[in-house]
Amino acid sequence: MSAIGNLTRELGKLPGVGTKTALRLAYHLVKGARGDTRRLARALEDVADRVHPCPRCGNYCEAELCQVCQDPSRDQEIICVVEEAYEVGAIERAGRYKGLFHVLGGRLSPLDGIGPEKLNIAGLIERLEGAGTPAREVILATNASVEGEATAVYLERLLRTRKVRITRLARGIPVGSDLEYVDGTTIAEALAGRREM
Amino acid sequence: MSAIGNLTRELGKLPGVGTKTALRLAYHLVKGARGDTRRLARALEDVADRVHPCPRCGNYCEAELCQVCQDPSRDQEIICVVEEAYEVGAIERAGRYKGLFHVLGGRLSPLDGIGPEKLNIAGLIERLEGAGTPAREVILATNASVEGEATAVYLERLLRTRKVRITRLARGIPVGSDLEYVDGTTIAEALAGRREM
Repeated sequence: MSAIGNLTRELGKLPGVGTKTALRLAYHLVKGARGDTRRLARALEDVADRVHPCPRCGNYCEAELCQVCQDPSRDQEIICVVEEAYEVGAIERAGRYKGLFHVLGGRLSPLDGIGPEKLNIAGLIERLEGAGTPAREVILATNASVEGEATAVYLERLLRTRKVRITRLARGIPVGSDLEYVDGTTIAEALAGRREM
Repeated sequence: MSAIGNLTRELGKLPGVGTKTALRLAYHLVKGARGDTRRLARALEDVADRVHPCPRCGNYCEAELCQVCQDPSRDQEIICVVEEAYEVGAIERAGRYKGLFHVLGGRLSPLDGIGPEKLNIAGLIERLEGAGTPAREVILATNASVEGEATAVYLERLLRTRKVRITRLARGIPVGSDLEYVDGTTIAEALAGRREM
């Protein structure tokens, strides 16, 4: 197989990249500066060489522990549970959360054959039972999708007998949006969760 | 910068890949099998190492000449001029053309600062004037866009004094399409180019 054909095949394995897009990207890389192509290759090798899941929380890191777990100034008694590692970044960018994270590595999805044993739930239990500061709160920050909700409900049932507060992110109107364009279920949730001003 | 951050930045340089997509792809590669990530890295290095423009036609190749230029069974007297190398593949897949190609490497686009000197036009003139079999036909297979048309018109004026037949691809109704959904300009072109049955 030709080098371009091979690159096209490898690019075509990426999510959301079909044959035509892969071909377009491959020719872009062939036509562009060699340096850019090599830099991308090195960035890929670097990630394969250096990045691994944090043994404590499951987020990706290059050091022994991830940056959040390493940081003694973070509140060690709150654990925010997310589905995927990139959601840690979304919450960190919001700049309000100062506790720890726990990455499940997915969500419950029986149709895709993803049961509790495929998620990093044992690690969460271990953290709650293990030595060190006991957690006082677990925030279930799974997505507001059907599977995300199901995962949160499953975890809530699993953890409810423990001495730990279990919370989830508020549902409501996204900041900056017009009520007119917000769906009915969200408005219902926002009404149910209304707060004193 | 972290390995993931660096990979995200490099992926974000690809056409049509914004920051969010780059982040999603980077995390997909981190989460997936290391082997896939390394294979993509190697495919990129291979392309940077081995692929270069064919000195005759400008198509990309790994050998001294591209496959088409190497092949003595191709009609050496017809040259099909295309804008980009990936369009050679589109014409080859159609399976009807047995002549040679010439890749311009772009199209005339004064607004983007792309004049004739930026295209591989000197190479085309050289091929028409050079030793070997003289070409009897040049097919201008630039795109049916405004810039593609302008490029074809420019080339036609440049070449019209030479003893060579200059043709362009037929405009008309795409095979398999309903007249109802074909735009008026295309129908007008198809009428003007109508043929005896």
